[in-house]
Amino acid sequence: MSQTEPYVLTDARIATLADGADGYGMIEGGAVVVNDGRIAWAGALSDLPDEYAAWRHLPQQGRLITPALIDCHTHIVFGGNRALEFEMRLNGASYEEVARAGGGIVSTVRDTRGASEEELTAWALPRLDALIADGASVVEVKSGYGLDIETELRMLRAARALGTVRTVQIKSTFLGAHATPAEYAGRNDAYIDEVCIPALRAAHSEGLVDAVDGFCENIAFTPDQIERVFKVARELDLPVKLHAEQLSHQGGTALAARYSALSVDHVEYATEQDARAMAAAGSVAVILPGAFYTIRETQAPPIAEFRKHNVAMALATDCNPGSSPLTSLLLAMNMGCTLFRMTPAEALAGVTCHAAKALGIPDKGCVAAGYCADLAIWNVQAPGELAYRIGFNPLHKRIVGGAI
Amino acid sequence: MSQTEPYVLTDARIATLADGADGYGMIEGGAVVVNDGRIAWAGALSDLPDEYAAWRHLPQQGRLITPALIDCHTHIVFGGNRALEFEMRLNGASYEEVARAGGGIVSTVRDTRGASEEELTAWALPRLDALIADGASVVEVKSGYGLDIETELRMLRAARALGTVRTVQIKSTFLGAHATPAEYAGRNDAYIDEVCIPALRAAHSEGLVDAVDGFCENIAFTPDQIERVFKVARELDLPVKLHAEQLSHQGGTALAARYSALSVDHVEYATEQDARAMAAAGSVAVILPGAFYTIRETQAPPIAEFRKHNVAMALATDCNPGSSPLTSLLLAMNMGCTLFRMTPAEALAGVTCHAAKALGIPDKGCVAAGYCADLAIWNVQAPGELAYRIGFNPLHKRIVGGAI
Repeated sequence: MSQTEPYVLTDARIATLADGADGYGMIEGGAVVVNDGRIAWAGALSDLPDEYAAWRHLPQQGRLITPALIDCHTHIVFGGNRALEFEMRLNGASYEEVARAGGGIVSTVRDTRGASEEELTAWALPRLDALIADGASVVEVKSGYGLDIETELRMLRAARALGTVRTVQIKSTFLGAHATPAEYAGRNDAYIDEVCIPALRAAHSEGLVDAVDGFCENIAFTPDQIERVFKVARELDLPVKLHAEQLSHQGGTALAARYSALSVDHVEYATEQDARAMAAAGSVAVILPGAFYTIRETQAPPIAEFRKHNVAMALATDCNPGSSPLTSLLLAMNMGCTLFRMTPAEALAGVTCHAAKALGIPDKGCVAAGYCADLAIWNVQAPGELAYRIGFNPLHKRIVGGAI
Repeated sequence: MSQTEPYVLTDARIATLADGADGYGMIEGGAVVVNDGRIAWAGALSDLPDEYAAWRHLPQQGRLITPALIDCHTHIVFGGNRALEFEMRLNGASYEEVARAGGGIVSTVRDTRGASEEELTAWALPRLDALIADGASVVEVKSGYGLDIETELRMLRAARALGTVRTVQIKSTFLGAHATPAEYAGRNDAYIDEVCIPALRAAHSEGLVDAVDGFCENIAFTPDQIERVFKVARELDLPVKLHAEQLSHQGGTALAARYSALSVDHVEYATEQDARAMAAAGSVAVILPGAFYTIRETQAPPIAEFRKHNVAMALATDCNPGSSPLTSLLLAMNMGCTLFRMTPAEALAGVTCHAAKALGIPDKGCVAAGYCADLAIWNVQAPGELAYRIGFNPLHKRIVGGAI
């Protein structure tokens, strides 16, 4: 169906997600009017304004309509394959043995540097297609496996290219401060000055950067080092976000809040004070249960504190070859509920309206007039089923920008 | 392609699973000769016997071939939907509140009793289709939500019917001793005598029973009660299996081993002595990480003891509406590795050759001459990827009885 023909989806239950953090915003016997890629109207069919009554009706047999899903934290562009490392570890190999066999993030950096832009795009496509098959219409993609100027730019170009070969919006995030490459071992400050910041400026000047991210952790960068990158982001008028408090408490969240970060991600070790700072800054907590599950972390993020202080919580796959080779937002929803006791409504908000907030795209993630017509239609009776089932995909159709 | 045309799959890596518990039994540059629904030969293409050289070759571009997957423990036939209960619990409802709202296994029994055979089959199909989409060619299905004679039989008929509407082998297991229905509350012995055993005899006389199962647990039946069912199974010459030591140690494993059970399932609380008894009896340990994950159990099954005593380990979904709404064997493999530190090779054996053993079907689960030509062809480089990735389905093609 062309985007230019207006239509009305009818005979649907709608989880609008339009009333903020609490609940689904359900409409029973609902209708969604789509015109020119946007939602013109959503509500109960009995209230449908006369002006839309003659438009083409597409009955949905009582199916559930939600906003299309949004994965606001992924690393799907990378080279190589780390299944062997997964297998070596389970066969008892030490980290040293894995490293000697060429494993670890070092191997991903090597294989990413060795890949062309076309290869990076091609290798990411099956991962992107898996996310799309789950109902995603927006996918964030980070750089951070190049760790040299040219490869960081190539990763971002590959990410942008993904959006030209699939019907999906790609938001590309510069993550130069992800790790220190071998040639800068022990010289993190020099890496930030000589590679990360110049790469950010170059990527921005090429129009490749939607946001700037970093990894603030005892195995990565200090808050001071991250702040030098954030200052450049501010100068370039780019929003920031941060991987923080994943393995320990380093104070990254407070820094990110000071820079009005779109989001702070992982946050297992965040404190109530961090939650307060995030609330004040309007930063979203991006919960990443796939990494928690894969690395067998035991410290759960402070969900109760986020609720108490009204910090919006997003959920994402964190798809990456090391700590979260996860390509299903539905499974991330189930993990958020099962592992962290999020409610199914919080989980759905986490992959729709709150994920949109974490990416700074205010016209996506809700089914309401004025929003972009990115919708998912599901073969389920109730929205809670999306998080309840495990390894099951009840997607009926995905609508992106009004196109079915 | 018709089953009667012989063909040779070439240009494939083959994980044969033909050398028992250890390793994949890999063949590089492999070929599989399929004739009349069976594997006529499997090995390196360079060793292909002359008699097959002229048969039609189907090159696989280096893809991985494994046995088709086998789910040896499911409850996919049931009525109703327990997503609401999942949601109520996460919103803080107590078990009592859930029960008052009509939740729990009682609701599944009510909705199963209220369903026709056709409805039970139709409702199970999306679950079966999800398993098939993951590469399954054999699925075990248990009764146990009827808990009266007629409904137990209807469940088994619905299970058998699934095998007529999809290209899949269904193994049906009588699980009358699953729970006590409300009308027998506090009278477990009477339930066994008046319902369970008569239902088993009736189901057997209708040819509906491939194996007899029970739930031996402090919330279900004692070893003595289970043994009365097993004695009837022995009289009818039916193999037995048992849900045992899932939540506590009740001695079910020892009982099952005395009856040469095909498998003992769950086994989180099994001991080394149990492992020894299972090894002596040839019983498979069926590991069910989906239930462990969903109910947030913390006691992992004694994988090291099973290894030490050479107990074959299968992996299954345990797909059921209460404790494991899981319909992906690939995800069960990942969970077996991530949660229980099984190796990817053990995980693959767990859903192929060892699952076949748990169902008593010795001609399935391996890629070797004489075996049934049930194969899965995957878009992966190495077999370890099947367990490594999460929420990703790289199935290229499924072959069942030689039919592609």
